[in-house]
Amino acid sequence: MLYFISLISLIVYIALKLDNASSLPMNDSFSIYADYRKKIDEILRQSITRKLPATLYDPLNYVLSGGGKRIRPMMVIFACEAAGGSFDDAVNASVALEMLHNFTLVHDDIMDNAETRRSEPTVHTKWNENVAILVGDQLIGLAYIYLLKTNSGNIKEITSAFTEGIIEVCEGQSFDKEYEERKDVGIDEYMMMIRKKTAKMLETSAAVGALIGGGDENFVSNVKEFALNTGLAFQIQDDLLDIIADEEEFGKKTGGDIIEGKKTYLLLKAFESAENVADKELIKKIIDNNGLKDATESDINKVRDVYVRSGAIESARKEIERFTKLAEDCLEQLPANIGRERLKWLTEMLMNRSI
Amino acid sequence: MLYFISLISLIVYIALKLDNASSLPMNDSFSIYADYRKKIDEILRQSITRKLPATLYDPLNYVLSGGGKRIRPMMVIFACEAAGGSFDDAVNASVALEMLHNFTLVHDDIMDNAETRRSEPTVHTKWNENVAILVGDQLIGLAYIYLLKTNSGNIKEITSAFTEGIIEVCEGQSFDKEYEERKDVGIDEYMMMIRKKTAKMLETSAAVGALIGGGDENFVSNVKEFALNTGLAFQIQDDLLDIIADEEEFGKKTGGDIIEGKKTYLLLKAFESAENVADKELIKKIIDNNGLKDATESDINKVRDVYVRSGAIESARKEIERFTKLAEDCLEQLPANIGRERLKWLTEMLMNRSI
Repeated sequence: MLYFISLISLIVYIALKLDNASSLPMNDSFSIYADYRKKIDEILRQSITRKLPATLYDPLNYVLSGGGKRIRPMMVIFACEAAGGSFDDAVNASVALEMLHNFTLVHDDIMDNAETRRSEPTVHTKWNENVAILVGDQLIGLAYIYLLKTNSGNIKEITSAFTEGIIEVCEGQSFDKEYEERKDVGIDEYMMMIRKKTAKMLETSAAVGALIGGGDENFVSNVKEFALNTGLAFQIQDDLLDIIADEEEFGKKTGGDIIEGKKTYLLLKAFESAENVADKELIKKIIDNNGLKDATESDINKVRDVYVRSGAIESARKEIERFTKLAEDCLEQLPANIGRERLKWLTEMLMNRSI
Repeated sequence: MLYFISLISLIVYIALKLDNASSLPMNDSFSIYADYRKKIDEILRQSITRKLPATLYDPLNYVLSGGGKRIRPMMVIFACEAAGGSFDDAVNASVALEMLHNFTLVHDDIMDNAETRRSEPTVHTKWNENVAILVGDQLIGLAYIYLLKTNSGNIKEITSAFTEGIIEVCEGQSFDKEYEERKDVGIDEYMMMIRKKTAKMLETSAAVGALIGGGDENFVSNVKEFALNTGLAFQIQDDLLDIIADEEEFGKKTGGDIIEGKKTYLLLKAFESAENVADKELIKKIIDNNGLKDATESDINKVRDVYVRSGAIESARKEIERFTKLAEDCLEQLPANIGRERLKWLTEMLMNRSI
């Protein structure tokens, strides 16, 4: 009997091992992601060691303990691993990128009058605008403190790449605010803007990670291009999900961008492509009135129909596919290793929005 | 006749030369200051090479072409020279410190609702608050870009010293804003706050300059201490000048701090030291009401009298003297050279407010 149980156990054990092996890359990447994320969250939670001034460090703790998918830190670490470096080499820089990302969130929330983020009150809502300005400023300082803990790679080059990220993300946000006031924004301008505002921070993460890992010029260039294209695909998909996503799954109300009059890929493409006069008029109305403030579900559906008829949704899908493909092509240029595998996994998970 | 004129000319020429020679250190430092300032102004004016987004780069040009005494850049360069380095070694970092200083001005002006600076509209008044937030953010980025152009000294150490400046100046401004709301701020807290908000930026300038110049640990420590004490003396003198300065010479209306209820050295000291009940009441009234909003000249004179009677003015003078002396003592520890001479001159000029 004992022998029989042992045999069954062995068979079950082997079956489980085989099953695990067949899906190893995916499961392994996910468990690595979960592990790294936990460690990064812990460092972020511990990063604020001072207590006073309370109006600076209380909100900083609030922001840095607030969760998030930690996409930028993962990009830093996986790019470092792909270049031949380790988690330990890149972890401080990865925290720096998350802090820099949070700086943009805190300041953007002031500018956008956003009351909540991840269902919690924003810093300027919970405290006030002055506090939020200083918290954002201090996040930049803290980010450099963490970046400068890095002991691998050329620190001057790494810090320069990091700083370039700040320059471009400020430009991106400035363009975004300018576009809110303008009624003649073109698709090209929109693409340039999201390149700076969204994609550049991912590109910077990849560059910093690759430089820490000791990647050569060609490697750094490829991994940056990979991250940039991933960022562009991600942002256009974000625009698309606003209108086609399942509300429960996506966690946001469908059509929010239309209500706010955000100049998304879909709105601008539909304005450019709509042939039907009534369709064009509807889009123009959204642009002229800075959104459809009291839009009903039926209003949103009408806009969605225009997006479909004008080919805007199809065009968005094609662009997402194109940028994802470009990202994958860049990855192919990198030497095959576990880091590259994880970068590939990160893009897939991002595009499936499963993390 | 011609011989006579030549002789007279020669005598005049020698007399002028002698006069010049006798006051050479002072005149020389001033002309060097004027020369460096011109060069720094020029770099700042040329630093913005991009034009778009206009809502970012127009105000940045406005800020960086707006003049100023360039005290922090001078501190960087003179400290570098004192350590054995040159103007060329330190000039980019000196520009970085001026940009960082301007970041604090632009963001502080938002928080203080300041409408003008150096008689010109502030960025958030001329444009808007969102623009001013982004301009300040971008100034931090630009400051790092210039700092990282530095080719002398240990760039990691230099960048760390610079970053520490950001951390402390944000803490200082946070404390300052907290103190505006509080009615029980003590002199010790005030001193800690100005150490972070005002003196730290001078200390950082000196540290960065000394590190670029290759100063050893002892040198860096002394020159930082020198700059810190200079900064403390400077800030207390600033508080004092608000109430005793000649309006025309100082360029600001006397008693502005009293009208605004700013918690200056004088106000806090008078509150601590006033023995007369009516005197204490008057100071308490300023604290409780956040200033004397419609104060007449006679009201200001009454407060000034309390400042005199309570010994606050005498105490301020003593503190200025004490910190100036401490600064000079630190300078004495440095090897005697032209850089040290110029640092000494800088402090003297600052305390005499003649530049």
